[in-house]
Amino acid sequence: MKSLKVIKIGGNIIDDQDALATFIKNFSALKGPKILIHGGGKVASQLAERLHIKVTMVEGRRITDAATLDIITMVYAGKINKNIVAKLQSHSCNAIGFSGADGNTIEAVKRPVQKLDFGYVGDVCKVNIQSLEMLLNNDITPVFCAITHDKNGQLLNTNADTIASELASAFANVYKTKLYYCFDKNGVLKDVNDNNSVIQQITKENFQSLIDDQSIADGMLPKLSNSFNAIKNNVLEVCIGKPAMLFDSKAIHTKIHK
Amino acid sequence: MKSLKVIKIGGNIIDDQDALATFIKNFSALKGPKILIHGGGKVASQLAERLHIKVTMVEGRRITDAATLDIITMVYAGKINKNIVAKLQSHSCNAIGFSGADGNTIEAVKRPVQKLDFGYVGDVCKVNIQSLEMLLNNDITPVFCAITHDKNGQLLNTNADTIASELASAFANVYKTKLYYCFDKNGVLKDVNDNNSVIQQITKENFQSLIDDQSIADGMLPKLSNSFNAIKNNVLEVCIGKPAMLFDSKAIHTKIHK
Repeated sequence: MKSLKVIKIGGNIIDDQDALATFIKNFSALKGPKILIHGGGKVASQLAERLHIKVTMVEGRRITDAATLDIITMVYAGKINKNIVAKLQSHSCNAIGFSGADGNTIEAVKRPVQKLDFGYVGDVCKVNIQSLEMLLNNDITPVFCAITHDKNGQLLNTNADTIASELASAFANVYKTKLYYCFDKNGVLKDVNDNNSVIQQITKENFQSLIDDQSIADGMLPKLSNSFNAIKNNVLEVCIGKPAMLFDSKAIHTKIHK
Repeated sequence: MKSLKVIKIGGNIIDDQDALATFIKNFSALKGPKILIHGGGKVASQLAERLHIKVTMVEGRRITDAATLDIITMVYAGKINKNIVAKLQSHSCNAIGFSGADGNTIEAVKRPVQKLDFGYVGDVCKVNIQSLEMLLNNDITPVFCAITHDKNGQLLNTNADTIASELASAFANVYKTKLYYCFDKNGVLKDVNDNNSVIQQITKENFQSLIDDQSIADGMLPKLSNSFNAIKNNVLEVCIGKPAMLFDSKAIHTKIHK
């Protein structure tokens, strides 16, 4: 079975031109099949502000009305995705940009209205890897933005960490798949203010105790939930840390495995 | 040799929700390999206005500075392209959105500054059909917006009619290729105000005489130049008219051939 790297980069890399350029150069040089997923960074909020569209955050989540979905589609699938693809091509990494609508790769359902109406937010229900597999087998690198669709013509805003986890999960029985969450810290930290307090191994066994003794900041829990989802679906390993972990075997990071 | 339809739709279809919905439904039902190219419509200019970015037109052409390129990338590759792809998927047409950067499909050079500096405008220099051919052979429909790249990381704004002509030309030796320019008139008109004055056949032989006796409006000349470029490159036929010509063999339109 061949190996596959599923790599998600967060907003802090997107927002920093130099960091993004360095990442793209190094990512292009990575051997073997790989998929990139990118978050949105601050660009969408900045555009919303310039257009006088109110950004409504509830419990740390963006409420996606029609105007906000338009902005997200323009920024994530347009500006950010196409610029990343063009930069990858300049390093001879043959990339093709994707939303979940492209190739019907990621189907989602609009989140049902309960206490809150999140608007056009999609929860992934099906990943179709056939066209992606064909591309990977031909040395083409899919680059995903965090947009899905409902197969009825509606685009939906979906968390980029979740997309990465679902893509990795869908490939785990076809490739030896590893999932990488790249962000601006060295890994999951015991002390959120101390970049040297990396928890280097998390397994299902020690996870609960780490929560119980409040070793893990609340903000990390969704990422860890996505990580364990991937592990449950036979992804070999999830790595959380700075992009350096991809290119330097000695770079400290958090490893999550069975 | 299999047949291929390369179909370009203009801004008037993009700007009209009902016309677009009808077109997408009918396009989805077309049998056989097909490629869609879409223009931008008024959305980009409207966004530029809302962002107080000046649209500079010189000799009917948009000058593309960095801010304008951003807008075009957001609107063409983001909003318009992804919504068309999602709508096609809802009709079970398995579409994947493309700019020329994706799959390195369309390489261009930034137009050299002569009398005018067009800014980030690209003239197509190379079309790479390998990945597109693979997708077409697997019943996947590429959907192109009018953006190319220079292979050095720079996106470029390129005329959608030209992209359609270049794509059709690149495929003409692999598929029996026909090119369709869909717009809001019945074809190339003798009298621009009379939709019944369609010139039904144009060949290289009668083209010059049609120009000489001023039968063809100036605005049509670039489209005809793109058409003859395609014919020169072995495209079998170019059809200009309303989308109906694609679905109804009796619909009046202009045919251009050798």
